[in-house]
Amino acid sequence: MDALRQHLARIQDLRHAAAVLEWDQETHMPSGGAEGRAHQVATLRQVAHETFASDATASLIESASPETEVDADLVRIARRDLARATRLPAPLVGALAEASARAKTAWAEARQDSDWALFGPHLERIVDLTTQKADLLRPLIAEERGAGYAPSDADARYDALLDEYEPGASTTEIAAVFADLRSHLVPLVQDIAARGAVDDEPLYRYVPETIQWELGMEIAYAFGYDLERGRQDLSAHPFTTTFGIDDVRITTRVDPNFFPTALYGTLHEAGHALYEQGISKELARTPLADGTSLGIHESQSRLWENQVGRSRAFWRRHFPAFQSQIGSWMDLNADTVWRACNRVQPSLIRVEADEVTYHLHVLLRFTLERELIAGRLAVGDVPDAWNAGMETLLGIVPETDRDGCLQDIHWSLGALGYFPTYSLGTLMSGQLWDAMGRDLGDLDALVADGEYGAILGWLRENVHQWGRRKTATQILQDATGSGLDAGPWLAYIRDKVESVYG
Amino acid sequence: MDALRQHLARIQDLRHAAAVLEWDQETHMPSGGAEGRAHQVATLRQVAHETFASDATASLIESASPETEVDADLVRIARRDLARATRLPAPLVGALAEASARAKTAWAEARQDSDWALFGPHLERIVDLTTQKADLLRPLIAEERGAGYAPSDADARYDALLDEYEPGASTTEIAAVFADLRSHLVPLVQDIAARGAVDDEPLYRYVPETIQWELGMEIAYAFGYDLERGRQDLSAHPFTTTFGIDDVRITTRVDPNFFPTALYGTLHEAGHALYEQGISKELARTPLADGTSLGIHESQSRLWENQVGRSRAFWRRHFPAFQSQIGSWMDLNADTVWRACNRVQPSLIRVEADEVTYHLHVLLRFTLERELIAGRLAVGDVPDAWNAGMETLLGIVPETDRDGCLQDIHWSLGALGYFPTYSLGTLMSGQLWDAMGRDLGDLDALVADGEYGAILGWLRENVHQWGRRKTATQILQDATGSGLDAGPWLAYIRDKVESVYG
Repeated sequence: MDALRQHLARIQDLRHAAAVLEWDQETHMPSGGAEGRAHQVATLRQVAHETFASDATASLIESASPETEVDADLVRIARRDLARATRLPAPLVGALAEASARAKTAWAEARQDSDWALFGPHLERIVDLTTQKADLLRPLIAEERGAGYAPSDADARYDALLDEYEPGASTTEIAAVFADLRSHLVPLVQDIAARGAVDDEPLYRYVPETIQWELGMEIAYAFGYDLERGRQDLSAHPFTTTFGIDDVRITTRVDPNFFPTALYGTLHEAGHALYEQGISKELARTPLADGTSLGIHESQSRLWENQVGRSRAFWRRHFPAFQSQIGSWMDLNADTVWRACNRVQPSLIRVEADEVTYHLHVLLRFTLERELIAGRLAVGDVPDAWNAGMETLLGIVPETDRDGCLQDIHWSLGALGYFPTYSLGTLMSGQLWDAMGRDLGDLDALVADGEYGAILGWLRENVHQWGRRKTATQILQDATGSGLDAGPWLAYIRDKVESVYG
Repeated sequence: MDALRQHLARIQDLRHAAAVLEWDQETHMPSGGAEGRAHQVATLRQVAHETFASDATASLIESASPETEVDADLVRIARRDLARATRLPAPLVGALAEASARAKTAWAEARQDSDWALFGPHLERIVDLTTQKADLLRPLIAEERGAGYAPSDADARYDALLDEYEPGASTTEIAAVFADLRSHLVPLVQDIAARGAVDDEPLYRYVPETIQWELGMEIAYAFGYDLERGRQDLSAHPFTTTFGIDDVRITTRVDPNFFPTALYGTLHEAGHALYEQGISKELARTPLADGTSLGIHESQSRLWENQVGRSRAFWRRHFPAFQSQIGSWMDLNADTVWRACNRVQPSLIRVEADEVTYHLHVLLRFTLERELIAGRLAVGDVPDAWNAGMETLLGIVPETDRDGCLQDIHWSLGALGYFPTYSLGTLMSGQLWDAMGRDLGDLDALVADGEYGAILGWLRENVHQWGRRKTATQILQDATGSGLDAGPWLAYIRDKVESVYG
């Protein structure tokens, strides 16, 4: 067991080293370093992969004698990861990496020029290679899920892609959840539009960048983000990265004329970081010390960003600190800012969407990529399908593909099957918040008193500490008593809409 | 040849990745990250070492067919490095690493308490292991240097240590150079003392940290430090690190009440960085893309720090920028600051020493470690020997070992044979500056006009571009027409002392 642990620890070291290099690349690296850095990261990833996907790993796993439950989980997860790492032939992995690198460049150019034709051939290649990948992984997934697993051919293929981001997730189940969401949210958005707009002018008042930075960090710290085991830097796109349980970093960006970018960026990433910092230390330097799925990860970021950070109780507690720092906020109060932060309004760009419409953006992407993978949608028809979907779901249509089907980087990275996890995470955050309320009582009162330790403690106990020892489904079942369920989040959002627009 | 290049490139990637992690550790890492980071760096260094010191490397070297001169140099240097990497048995390398780790901790404590007895046993172990290492390397050194090489037994051993930092250097030659320096500098220091003190009060005036930072960076940039391929950060001890020719970073520290710390720290490190940035791009990702010796490296940092940065011409050019930024400098002029920056005064701490007395600090360390390695000095007798040496060389004696033989970290790292390179570099800077003057004419006029491009161009041509393709001796010979020679630096320093104290 010790030999396996030592072997896996070295592989974790290599992966964390790659993460440090990628973090530096996005935060501090001078532009000239780009070419060398690409080589360094590729070499580290390759060495880590070769060391892991090896006969040595297989024989260490087979000869390991687990003595504890953690040992047993470690062997189980190592075996699972090894099966995946050795499933894909090196030429396919190389072709995917190369296609992604080219597609990423083409996407940036296509987006700049709003020219889908520049990107189309690259997406065709990505879809082709991703389909090959899915077909190679399918038997593995089927074997893991056992006799009752009988999806359609197309869904089985998409399941294999989903599984990389949300282990165990089912396309059929997700499609049903989205149908449910859609049936509630499309009329809700129309209903809100009929009620008249919320005044969101306070969001656009100038707030100096250093003040935004400090207020965000104060709140992240109050949530429990440990700055002796983390830090925040600036980057073009906010992200969280971990170099081990005791060094989990976040980034943000700051718009002096739109404070929610930095504030909610920081709170969102702090939510991710709290998860990584809360993993049990006995899992350090093992592959168990990681988020168990992207959905669970997103549930943590969304919960702190939305259920906590966009609540009326939050603004009543923190508004005085904002007002004392921001000269132009003298005429505002906690409720005007809270209301502005919760305006609901159909918009073109997913990452700027409000809580209600966000799911509809995700649903559109899920629908289209599912059709692409099933071979029922041609790449050339994506722009029309996108615009038709926007019209149906949100009642607005982008004037250019730049604000439409070219807005997201994900497809160029080959990350098909990723988008649904954003909505899954949001729904899970609703379930967890609901269960937490049953255990802890009045959560708004805790937020109003700044008693974030109680909330964090509950998440530590029920979610964070486990790392990958429990699946997303097990986490949900043990913490909330049920599987994936849109109900609690829908109840939460109806309540909020009622209080904001009522 | 391609296979060898590819193999060595991957090893360089791993080494540069380790350098990124070490840089982050000294500049940005939260304290909690220390333990994980130690594992990550150790793993990277081990993987890089194992990949290099392998049969694969040996057979790639033997089967390589060099087609260009660079190819031939690459094969030669790879063969040289491989001979060293495979010479030492793993248990000895491990024992040295472990002894250093322990000694470093013990040294920090001993220094804190000014208690040599705490450090002594650790130094004994270091000396013992280092001696074993030297004896294993000696046959290799002897073989490389050929038939005429016939040092004493003790010098042969010290040569083997020196060679790691200053390939090809000779203990006998260095001892002769130091004897020469000593015969000139000891009386010079006494002569200066007799002339009366320079007013150094301007050095201690308060200068806000951001202003110090900006002035230093402006000058580094004017020298030619490319900030698209580099950056500066804060750290406890200034250093330069390279992640490849196009990403070479420096650090500094700032004392608001002693501006030379940051200014000359930045200029010194910028000198190192200009060397690394100036290596020919065709050497990128090969082991040739590195400084050829610590002496040559130090010659570059010293030249920009001292010959340029402590010249009267420099202060005449840059004083107005300082005065316009620093409120308390209104009553000063270029000459008063220049003179203050060149005061000569015996002091206890090497890193704070002036240009003249610096060599005497180095000479003391060289003498003592040579005796330690020769077995002629017992570790327990170091404090007395140190204090006696200070008395003889500088006429002052530290009251505590903290300000004496416990001040430097080097011995605890096992870096015996390192100290002399500081003086070698300074002497080389004198030779290079002298030769540059013969080629370019009035260097003071270039500095006064800010024509740093001419100086940098000469260094690029004669020193930087070559990386490790030329040895230190070849660089000196080709650039100056002679081998190591204290004469030019002594002439330079006599001139300066005359103008400052005359």
